[in-house]
Amino acid sequence: MAGNTTGSVFRVTTWGESHGEALGCVIDGCPAGMALDAADIQPALDRRRPSSAAASTTRGETDRVEILSGVFEGKTTGTPISLIIRNADAKSSSYDDLKDVFRPGHGDYSYDKKYGVRDWRGGGRASGRETVSRVAAGAVAEKLITAAGIDVLAYTRAIGGIEINPVAMIPFEDFKHQVRRNALYCPDGQVATAMEEELASVRKQGDSLGGVVEILVRGCPAGLGEPVFDKMDAALASALMGIGTVKAVEIGDGCSVASKKGSQVNDPMDRDGFCKNSAGGILAGITTGQDILLRVYCKPIPSIALVQQTTGIHGDPRSIEISGRHDICVIPRIVPVCEAMVCLVLADHWLRQRAVLP
Amino acid sequence: MAGNTTGSVFRVTTWGESHGEALGCVIDGCPAGMALDAADIQPALDRRRPSSAAASTTRGETDRVEILSGVFEGKTTGTPISLIIRNADAKSSSYDDLKDVFRPGHGDYSYDKKYGVRDWRGGGRASGRETVSRVAAGAVAEKLITAAGIDVLAYTRAIGGIEINPVAMIPFEDFKHQVRRNALYCPDGQVATAMEEELASVRKQGDSLGGVVEILVRGCPAGLGEPVFDKMDAALASALMGIGTVKAVEIGDGCSVASKKGSQVNDPMDRDGFCKNSAGGILAGITTGQDILLRVYCKPIPSIALVQQTTGIHGDPRSIEISGRHDICVIPRIVPVCEAMVCLVLADHWLRQRAVLP
Amino acid sequence: MAGNTTGSVFRVTTWGESHGEALGCVIDGCPAGMALDAADIQPALDRRRPSSAAASTTRGETDRVEILSGVFEGKTTGTPISLIIRNADAKSSSYDDLKDVFRPGHGDYSYDKKYGVRDWRGGGRASGRETVSRVAAGAVAEKLITAAGIDVLAYTRAIGGIEINPVAMIPFEDFKHQVRRNALYCPDGQVATAMEEELASVRKQGDSLGGVVEILVRGCPAGLGEPVFDKMDAALASALMGIGTVKAVEIGDGCSVASKKGSQVNDPMDRDGFCKNSAGGILAGITTGQDILLRVYCKPIPSIALVQQTTGIHGDPRSIEISGRHDICVIPRIVPVCEAMVCLVLADHWLRQRAVLP
Amino acid sequence: MAGNTTGSVFRVTTWGESHGEALGCVIDGCPAGMALDAADIQPALDRRRPSSAAASTTRGETDRVEILSGVFEGKTTGTPISLIIRNADAKSSSYDDLKDVFRPGHGDYSYDKKYGVRDWRGGGRASGRETVSRVAAGAVAEKLITAAGIDVLAYTRAIGGIEINPVAMIPFEDFKHQVRRNALYCPDGQVATAMEEELASVRKQGDSLGGVVEILVRGCPAGLGEPVFDKMDAALASALMGIGTVKAVEIGDGCSVASKKGSQVNDPMDRDGFCKNSAGGILAGITTGQDILLRVYCKPIPSIALVQQTTGIHGDPRSIEISGRHDICVIPRIVPVCEAMVCLVLADHWLRQRAVLP
Repeated sequence: MAGNTTGSVFRVTTWGESHGEALGCVIDGCPAGMALDAADIQPALDRRRPSSAAASTTRGETDRVEILSGVFEGKTTGTPISLIIRNADAKSSSYDDLKDVFRPGHGDYSYDKKYGVRDWRGGGRASGRETVSRVAAGAVAEKLITAAGIDVLAYTRAIGGIEINPVAMIPFEDFKHQVRRNALYCPDGQVATAMEEELASVRKQGDSLGGVVEILVRGCPAGLGEPVFDKMDAALASALMGIGTVKAVEIGDGCSVASKKGSQVNDPMDRDGFCKNSAGGILAGITTGQDILLRVYCKPIPSIALVQQTTGIHGDPRSIEISGRHDICVIPRIVPVCEAMVCLVLADHWLRQRAVLP
Repeated sequence: MAGNTTGSVFRVTTWGESHGEALGCVIDGCPAGMALDAADIQPALDRRRPSSAAASTTRGETDRVEILSGVFEGKTTGTPISLIIRNADAKSSSYDDLKDVFRPGHGDYSYDKKYGVRDWRGGGRASGRETVSRVAAGAVAEKLITAAGIDVLAYTRAIGGIEINPVAMIPFEDFKHQVRRNALYCPDGQVATAMEEELASVRKQGDSLGGVVEILVRGCPAGLGEPVFDKMDAALASALMGIGTVKAVEIGDGCSVASKKGSQVNDPMDRDGFCKNSAGGILAGITTGQDILLRVYCKPIPSIALVQQTTGIHGDPRSIEISGRHDICVIPRIVPVCEAMVCLVLADHWLRQRAVLP
Repeated sequence: MAGNTTGSVFRVTTWGESHGEALGCVIDGCPAGMALDAADIQPALDRRRPSSAAASTTRGETDRVEILSGVFEGKTTGTPISLIIRNADAKSSSYDDLKDVFRPGHGDYSYDKKYGVRDWRGGGRASGRETVSRVAAGAVAEKLITAAGIDVLAYTRAIGGIEINPVAMIPFEDFKHQVRRNALYCPDGQVATAMEEELASVRKQGDSLGGVVEILVRGCPAGLGEPVFDKMDAALASALMGIGTVKAVEIGDGCSVASKKGSQVNDPMDRDGFCKNSAGGILAGITTGQDILLRVYCKPIPSIALVQQTTGIHGDPRSIEISGRHDICVIPRIVPVCEAMVCLVLADHWLRQRAVLP
Repeated sequence: MAGNTTGSVFRVTTWGESHGEALGCVIDGCPAGMALDAADIQPALDRRRPSSAAASTTRGETDRVEILSGVFEGKTTGTPISLIIRNADAKSSSYDDLKDVFRPGHGDYSYDKKYGVRDWRGGGRASGRETVSRVAAGAVAEKLITAAGIDVLAYTRAIGGIEINPVAMIPFEDFKHQVRRNALYCPDGQVATAMEEELASVRKQGDSLGGVVEILVRGCPAGLGEPVFDKMDAALASALMGIGTVKAVEIGDGCSVASKKGSQVNDPMDRDGFCKNSAGGILAGITTGQDILLRVYCKPIPSIALVQQTTGIHGDPRSIEISGRHDICVIPRIVPVCEAMVCLVLADHWLRQRAVLP
């Protein structure tokens, strides 16, 4: 019953540890006849290696994806697509002193309780590095749904309390360009500068910062989502909450609906469709054709240089300072992971809906 | 690929529409030999019919559960447990005028787009009434995990902006008693009175109110949750976001972690275990043995008496006033549904973990 | 991980025991908009109550199906279809003396070992009566695939060593009519008479007889089946071997291929397609568009009047004579069950293929 | 809904084409803490390269397995185990002339109809070479169930009509040794010699031969199998019928039960348990603790040197002679594949049963 497979028609199984030989995934259920090569996947992996020196480690992750099966003469064949990303530059020796200690905020303790044994090198399977497989699979899903007119874009909404202003209405492609050219994937350059400064300051303190990622889906057809347990909102919440760092997920107006009245939250309709989008593009768990709007709240990276109290694996009290190469803020890395997860959900549900179309 | 089954070991399939013959569920995977009769299930169904006249409709839902299979001489046999709740007092004629109109905030539009046909009587499958099946199944799950020492309690944290004070540390059973004796399932009687007043006021306005439900899990063993796609937090987020009214889900410190530093969010450990519980009992998607703490943000009931702009099913503009018997606030009904969904997730993961225990 | 659900798009969950309140099933994933009422299902249930007095018990099973959900104004709505068949005329008292003994050839022993407890009334869940749920679900599947031009027909090929001659090439509808008007579902009336005589003779001996059912699928489009683990032949083998009485399954030329040469077994092709059909309509696990031909070998009913040696549930030797009302030969009852199972597999795979059609 | 994953607790996903970069599998759900390295898997892969020159091609398949994840310091960690077998010596150019023709008896036609595109090099995914992934995964499953006392042994029962005599009762380990030292995995050396002669004769004719594999499971505990759709016999039938060459599956007395009486087929019991084993170790879909006995009937290799009539991919009549390196008889290769598939089913069901043990 292990949980390394997601999706039911577009089905992805991932594998790999932070400091193992390689990481990868198997995609089963991608329709045959879709043009695909490694160059369709590589850009997403490259975006996962953010260029913001303020936020991120300098670990030289090369992350070259290879397609081992499922593609012939440049097209998918309908058989499983196996993707592999070999690990390079993984200095596991730098983790030797973490072998028998539980790092606060990490999965060390819970993995130990669950499995009894644990690959302690860089967090093993619990490492954020695991998400390279998701990003690779997500790029294939994205190619599939892009052909159906669905666009998915994630961007940084807040880092450590510094938040962007409401997003101005500009054409989607322009907005996407604006986001992707920024080192923090923040659509507002000025706010991004303030974020970089805050990150630099927190780095000096030996601490780390959390943040908020927003995901916008445009062009999703109405009718996707499978009540009552695989509703679109439930599927998206699962996909996003399952990213290591996420502690809250909002859809549409999110938390704020709890203190509003029905007359404020309901979206009226007129001849042109919905007049507003408090619902975030999903009603009763099924897409309405409006934009889907999601927000995830990410905790700060738990690996910090400051002294922390913890215990060894036998319960003996310890104090720990985590050196090594670590990000200060996970947000720029999480942006492409959020995109990938949303693409996986949409690809799966888009195919599921095709199966039963009246 | 329809989504009416949840769980992989403790697996529940629900069925039924608001104004059909009956609603029910099939539970497959409940271990054999557990004492079970209808009296184990009925109290949860009764709690779903809240006594707060301020919040709720007076529709006389009787909701008697019958066990049709899977139990012999008072014990589960390991075969599927079929539960049925017959519909009574369902005046579908009062919905006749909603047959060809999309009610704002409801699933009418999205169901129509997905399926082409739609049972318009009281929302059909999209009705909140569908949750009786979940509550019935959840009661069986609860019985299973209670035997394993796991307690699940949901309660009202806020209604329409009126929020309880931080929950005082009293013994769990006392707290549970305090919650369940209150008509709004609110642990603070004084705050509950203010909520009732607000509800009465909003009822006069012809409007409705949202709110926040908090769920506390005590006694959950460490080690439950299946990375990387069926993590405990992902599974809970899916289960809760899939409740019709929920627009946001938080775990532990939730949204607030996004503006905090790592040194604030990490939970240190000492000889006695974790020193605090910012994580909400889940690290890297696996339970730690601490309390699991969840919050869901619910939108106001979309059926309001105020005039709303909408369209007919052919896109013709209409104005609509929804009369009929409707709740003003969904929260007291959602409390037992949240409990049920969390019990279903925990029962499933507890059995899953048994399969692979080293 | 209990196994009472089958199919992945057209998904059926069955429940119910021989002498419980009722039996039934939930069908999830039937496309919306299909005309359906109880009269579409009832004839299949009626065929499961064979008219051959020679073969069968006189237990007055009424087996009226009710549709409890998923159909509105005569059409499927895309939501779960719940079917129920109430038990009537179930004299469980006649099983009282079987409470603490293992009947040879039955599931009494294995159920006891698996579950620890057991509903001993008429075999409980292990009773052949469980198949009413399958037949009901199969009738819905049949309606779906019939609209796609696929016909499924099962018939009696042999009973107790008496076998029909090779089936003559007559129009499918005529053949179907010929089969269904015979009390043993045997296409050859003369052979059927010999079978009836053999059955009468064996009844007198207090013994029972096995037989062979053949299933013919006509009009199945090419391309159904999902390598490498859900191939069409694998799915059909599972569906048929899972019928209580079946001990062998053949596809196409079946067992006989093992002693043949490649030049005999390969099916050549010419301008008009395949020149013969040794493969039975399936190549590499995928349908070819030819007739699918299957045969199942059924063991004799284990309940016999003759004295048998067995043990009580505590291992104490016993001798047993099973009186009560029992069939002499399961074949006429198994014919509609085979049809149902094949329809379920085909409906599921037909929808699965739609999801990924290039 | 593609079907490249099998199992529900011990879950295996395979990937790879005959002439692609590599083949492999991901095993998800193997319990943590089991000792495992490549040397546990390699012998099974080696057995798949039979030493009988009479039966098999001389293609120098090296088939070295690498473990890429899920194992740390020699033990499984509970995370996905990724296995890879690189393709070597795969001369795809020798298939160039098969690019646009449908080989009789192969999956060329059905794959073309299903997917529209097709990797024609050596059969692509439809090649028997795909089974290396199954054999690798099966070796891990075997290690798991061996620790639980379950032994699985497959052997050659017949080739081209030449059949072994009834297997003498010798100790299991001796029997296993006898089977494995024979180039055809035939327990009777004299019969094996006759088979070799027949194979040599058929090779000269440019033809090929089918055969029968028998599988014996010893030590399987009672209680495995999940009625009513994942019964042990159904699961085994699916696993075995899904092997490319198999056209019939028998359990216990198999086909012969159809012409017998109940008094002959029922297995009586006495103080020491079952007195015989007509059932083949499975009653009502659940194991009884007796030996499980299975037989599969395999068609001759479809690639033969003789001239065959077929068509090109556009329906144009062609005659074809398949040269290249091809086996004459698939049986020695299928023996380890049958073992692997049975091990996979048993490992999965053994873990499933642990989840719900009373």
